[in-house]
Amino acid sequence: MTDQKESKCVRVRLKKPCAQYDIIIGSGSLDCIGNKTRTVLGDAARRIVVISNRKVLGLYGSRVTSSLRKSGFKVENFSIGDGERHKSFRTLQRVLFFLANLRLERSDAIVALGGGVVGDVAGLAAALYMRGIAFIQVPTTLLAQIDASVGGKTAVNLSQGKNLVGAFHQPRAVIIDIDVLATLPKRELTSGWCEAIKQGAVGSRSLFDRTRRVLADGSYRAKSEEQLVFLIAAQCRFKAKIVAGDEGENLQRTDRTSRRVLNFGHTVGHALELVTGYRRFRHGEAVGVGMLVAGEISLRSGLLKESEFQALDDTIRLAGQLPRTSDLDYSTILNAAAGDKKSVKGSIQWVLLERIGRACIVDAPDIPQRVLNDSVRSVRQRAR
Amino acid sequence: MTDQKESKCVRVRLKKPCAQYDIIIGSGSLDCIGNKTRTVLGDAARRIVVISNRKVLGLYGSRVTSSLRKSGFKVENFSIGDGERHKSFRTLQRVLFFLANLRLERSDAIVALGGGVVGDVAGLAAALYMRGIAFIQVPTTLLAQIDASVGGKTAVNLSQGKNLVGAFHQPRAVIIDIDVLATLPKRELTSGWCEAIKQGAVGSRSLFDRTRRVLADGSYRAKSEEQLVFLIAAQCRFKAKIVAGDEGENLQRTDRTSRRVLNFGHTVGHALELVTGYRRFRHGEAVGVGMLVAGEISLRSGLLKESEFQALDDTIRLAGQLPRTSDLDYSTILNAAAGDKKSVKGSIQWVLLERIGRACIVDAPDIPQRVLNDSVRSVRQRAR
Repeated sequence: MTDQKESKCVRVRLKKPCAQYDIIIGSGSLDCIGNKTRTVLGDAARRIVVISNRKVLGLYGSRVTSSLRKSGFKVENFSIGDGERHKSFRTLQRVLFFLANLRLERSDAIVALGGGVVGDVAGLAAALYMRGIAFIQVPTTLLAQIDASVGGKTAVNLSQGKNLVGAFHQPRAVIIDIDVLATLPKRELTSGWCEAIKQGAVGSRSLFDRTRRVLADGSYRAKSEEQLVFLIAAQCRFKAKIVAGDEGENLQRTDRTSRRVLNFGHTVGHALELVTGYRRFRHGEAVGVGMLVAGEISLRSGLLKESEFQALDDTIRLAGQLPRTSDLDYSTILNAAAGDKKSVKGSIQWVLLERIGRACIVDAPDIPQRVLNDSVRSVRQRAR
Repeated sequence: MTDQKESKCVRVRLKKPCAQYDIIIGSGSLDCIGNKTRTVLGDAARRIVVISNRKVLGLYGSRVTSSLRKSGFKVENFSIGDGERHKSFRTLQRVLFFLANLRLERSDAIVALGGGVVGDVAGLAAALYMRGIAFIQVPTTLLAQIDASVGGKTAVNLSQGKNLVGAFHQPRAVIIDIDVLATLPKRELTSGWCEAIKQGAVGSRSLFDRTRRVLADGSYRAKSEEQLVFLIAAQCRFKAKIVAGDEGENLQRTDRTSRRVLNFGHTVGHALELVTGYRRFRHGEAVGVGMLVAGEISLRSGLLKESEFQALDDTIRLAGQLPRTSDLDYSTILNAAAGDKKSVKGSIQWVLLERIGRACIVDAPDIPQRVLNDSVRSVRQRAR
């Protein structure tokens, strides 16, 4: 058992007084899962189903299981396939059947051990099984740690689009162990850093700068645990603040503290994932390209200064190489973007930037088609 | 267009201030759906998907569609199969695919026109599509009018049990037209009256007596509209009061105002539906038998007086003939009951009666097996 070294706790407060939970961020925190789970669930809980994928289960399954068993839980594991295409209605059904066959009870719980796909499917299964049982999130990718760990969004994809079926279901606790990042493939890190950059870009210059510094000196490669724990905590705290002010993602809100600003880069990001069959891009990578497009639109619309756009572009470069887009037709991308689920009264809205740290929401009809076309083309052609 | 004659409005208030809605009960109220829907949804809503079944759509589809169109909505219909076996994960998937293919937006809405199956599937689809869109409930069975219209429970069945997959999702309005009861098959009425009897039995002697009076003089056969409107309003109000005090159905609560008392008759009721493959019983009929079993248990445990049990028994007889149970093995029924999802720490709890109008919750281990066996046997053998 690893000793816990650096550790931070971010409390997420939601409107319903019972709906608040802790995010524990530290090195070696996987070993405190049993304790924390028992604390939040109380004595009535007897069984835990750990939902994960084969790879993550192989790396961390036994540590998690042993920690849970020490706290008196009976533990069962369930593996789902790795990759966005397994975030499907079919996988959801398999998980629900597994829970039902176990006769899991309403006082029992689910632990989601994995990245965004595992968290989204397991969270939705927890939201739906018997109209909602408890779940504990143990995100093992950088992206899931800073993004999916806050907000309570769960979902699966339909062939018609991403996250079309889902629910808001808050975890009862989130356990983030930064040590797991050491086993993460490079592209997964790039994907996570893109979302980290996004959070700073839309709402906090200081968070943006802090993220950039960690990226620039490469310290996220386990050089400085403390710096990494602090940055992830700051990212979670930022997202928690936004989410607390707009729990249900009110579509009528278009102000810059509305939850919708977090969709910066996502309109084109989702479109890219869709037109490439969820195979080419990791989610954050697609958001990385999407941020460049939204940045270009902001620049070409006269909202954003060239120097600010450069800062965004440079920082995204620091995050790592993004997949090619040069073979994709701009109109295909824009058509897919028009079907994004964030549309209101039949037209989508773009999250754009006024400067680093300040986003705004603009109705699509207010942006000339030429600006959209040129922005996508320009990003597509750029050598990365 | 029918003029509205008798009409009552029950406001259901929930903790979240935005989650309150009206139940409109009247004769001819189908024709006010368009108006009411526009009022609660506002101008952003453009499209409505009416989810129903073929029979109900044939009877009332054109009236509902025309009312909605008059209020400026684009209307699409979707039929699901009739009967509890269509309350399945597969049907849910079909509905969600239909909504996604239409590219329905988050500001659009679903109207559930039908009985419990339609309401549960449509409500769950509304809860899940894009993590929740608005829905309006138009219950067309007595059971759905007094039961499903309040509480926000939505669900589908798995082969392992009823309602195993679901969500709490409140309708934005409920429109109850008592005229539709005239086209309801006799067994559907019996099913509804059983739930009506249950609500009185667990929480209100006066509601029980009022229900019994309407049943005894047969006035529910459209003799007295006013009496029926008042009774249905009283039933809705009663359920709303219970639900408002316990929105999420807190499993730790065992007091007599907890939402769980509404499960009186449901432990055995669900078991009967399960062991007969959801084909023999209408839901309320199964609850009718379940109430008799729970009544017998209460009687044999010395909780309930003989005269009170008789009052319950007599009133259930007034509701109509219940399907036979004589061919079902008592141990099969009790084993199925043990798998009911309302179990806590591995054992189920029974809702029993202390008197008409007062329920209590008892842990299964506190009831001798002999009492359970004898109670089921006794009800099974009784000539109805």
